Amino acid sequence: MRAEGVDAVLLSVGPDLPWLTGFTAMAQERLTMLVLPREGAPTLVVPSFETERVVDREKLLTLSPWGETDDPVELVADALGGAATGRLAIGDHTWSRFLVALQRRLASGSWTDAGSVLGPLRAAKDDAEIDALARAGAGVDVVATELQNGDIPLIGRSETEVAADLRARILDNGHTRVNFCIVASGPNSSSPHHDTGDRVIQAGEPVLFDFGGTTAEPVGQPGYCSDTTRMVFTGDPPEEFTEAYEALAAAQEAGYQAAQVGTPAEEVDRAARDVLTSAGLGAYFLHRLGHGIGVEGHEDPYLVGGNAEPLEAGNAFSIEPGFYIQGRWGARIEDIVVATADGPRRLINSSRRLAIVEA
Amino acid sequence: MRAEGVDAVLLSVGPDLPWLTGFTAMAQERLTMLVLPREGAPTLVVPSFETERVVDREKLLTLSPWGETDDPVELVADALGGAATGRLAIGDHTWSRFLVALQRRLASGSWTDAGSVLGPLRAAKDDAEIDALARAGAGVDVVATELQNGDIPLIGRSETEVAADLRARILDNGHTRVNFCIVASGPNSSSPHHDTGDRVIQAGEPVLFDFGGTTAEPVGQPGYCSDTTRMVFTGDPPEEFTEAYEALAAAQEAGYQAAQVGTPAEEVDRAARDVLTSAGLGAYFLHRLGHGIGVEGHEDPYLVGGNAEPLEAGNAFSIEPGFYIQGRWGARIEDIVVATADGPRRLINSSRRLAIVEA
Repeated sequence: MRAEGVDAVLLSVGPDLPWLTGFTAMAQERLTMLVLPREGAPTLVVPSFETERVVDREKLLTLSPWGETDDPVELVADALGGAATGRLAIGDHTWSRFLVALQRRLASGSWTDAGSVLGPLRAAKDDAEIDALARAGAGVDVVATELQNGDIPLIGRSETEVAADLRARILDNGHTRVNFCIVASGPNSSSPHHDTGDRVIQAGEPVLFDFGGTTAEPVGQPGYCSDTTRMVFTGDPPEEFTEAYEALAAAQEAGYQAAQVGTPAEEVDRAARDVLTSAGLGAYFLHRLGHGIGVEGHEDPYLVGGNAEPLEAGNAFSIEPGFYIQGRWGARIEDIVVATADGPRRLINSSRRLAIVEA
Repeated sequence: MRAEGVDAVLLSVGPDLPWLTGFTAMAQERLTMLVLPREGAPTLVVPSFETERVVDREKLLTLSPWGETDDPVELVADALGGAATGRLAIGDHTWSRFLVALQRRLASGSWTDAGSVLGPLRAAKDDAEIDALARAGAGVDVVATELQNGDIPLIGRSETEVAADLRARILDNGHTRVNFCIVASGPNSSSPHHDTGDRVIQAGEPVLFDFGGTTAEPVGQPGYCSDTTRMVFTGDPPEEFTEAYEALAAAQEAGYQAAQVGTPAEEVDRAARDVLTSAGLGAYFLHRLGHGIGVEGHEDPYLVGGNAEPLEAGNAFSIEPGFYIQGRWGARIEDIVVATADGPRRLINSSRRLAIVEA
């Protein structure tokens, strides 16, 4: 906070608050807000009838409960004290309705985003966090391997049906929540964020699976996220697809090898992108190479052109090149990788080969 | 927008965008934003690789796609044109990081919340919306009735195990998503928003069940929410509990009867509260009487002291008085009700009696 010139951080919904305190604000119209001044003690403004949910944190936090006809914005102003006229950093996910109300009440404060303070802290994972990410990865590895082994029927079933199977297996393997589950078959695989739907999977086509969840942890500890993408072909793939897939796998490996401590994030993106460009697929790689991951599915650091920040030990992120040929097909391979002093370490370890399943 | 003096509405994540367009922005660090000026055509600023997800809305919206190294805030500013220096209404749930970035770029605009424009529109449900809410209610009625009939074992099982059963049944009955599922047993029932946990349900205690989800609708139509609370006692309840429960049921009925078109929202709250106060339970009714419901679980109108707005035909809301005696026990009864010209209509119709289940 001192380095960023921030006088107070204000956190509500989103992962910063549970990452700091183990307590998650409910995403609703009743404001819960941690007021964390640079000097002095933190206060949690919280609906009074939810104080039983935070009782264990009373040692860490002064509670400022508000009744149903009180104005919580006044309590935030009170808790800020002298910091109310300073530089205030608002939690990234805080609903704008609350920022608008706070700005109306605290007209002489200036505003910035709390990501400038919390982002770098959260991006440098400690050993316990890396262990949790590794457990998350091992869970989705089990599901990916079942897919690759043909244990989950594909041909003749809708994307939605297959996704329901995957969701159940993700929950059976160390996750308390499924955050997303993309099943994109045939031409749908050319839409990177395809909305899994009613299309029935056919023989002789690629199917893209991109899924992840959040691990179950003891009460008061936030879960950590998994995220992986694997490809299956329902039958023998045409040579054109196989060749493109081999270039994709080489790009993924190049990104992995480039993910060294000290390397600028955009250089890791470039290392993978260059391989696809050389294979004539650069124009079809529509997105950045990767995103950080932790208690949130996407967080710092982002592996994207324009981000010259060097990787630090403990950074965990996806390496996920893809190619998308609109209306025809697409593919992506995604691992989670952590940068360490000994070089990059994969936290996703299922096979990266194109799996072939028969009818 | 004219009535509120708003020159443009800016919508991102949250229910306003799908309610207006059928398209849901992904909750992530890549900005999706509908720019809706009071005069002129709307523009959707969207990550370029997600344009396939919005292709059907191209008739309604001009797409302004942005690549991974572009700045979407610039595209929002471009789409605003002359409105950029006017009064800008930001979507209630928009992440604050984006509002901070927009305020930095659009320093001469003034800001308000889009809820002032969208809230009243969404609160007046049309017949199709009421039908959807009724279908949602009928779905959770089935689950509540199974609970009350003893079809779901309680005693000796953890809250979490029972909640998993309920979640599956909610999905089996017309819902595409479970939004919350509170199982609060014994003393946990005294925390209105108890975090369902590992406590094993005992014989001879109250158990509070509060659950709801979102209905499955055709692609391009947002789902509508259910929300109900019912009480079960695992054995014969003591007279003290039964008497308090009877007062609670009377308060719920009084709130229902008061929910007439034209009645100020706070008067409905008062009608129910007065019954509990007369029974000596007023101090234990810790929260407002209810909240509006629609595509969002909590929305306008709120039945709370200080809200003098009269109910309008088509308003749909919960009526949910409760009493909570900390560390001992609590109870709540919750229905969804719609105000109509012919008087209030319940959209939740399972039994409101205290259900007794035996071991």
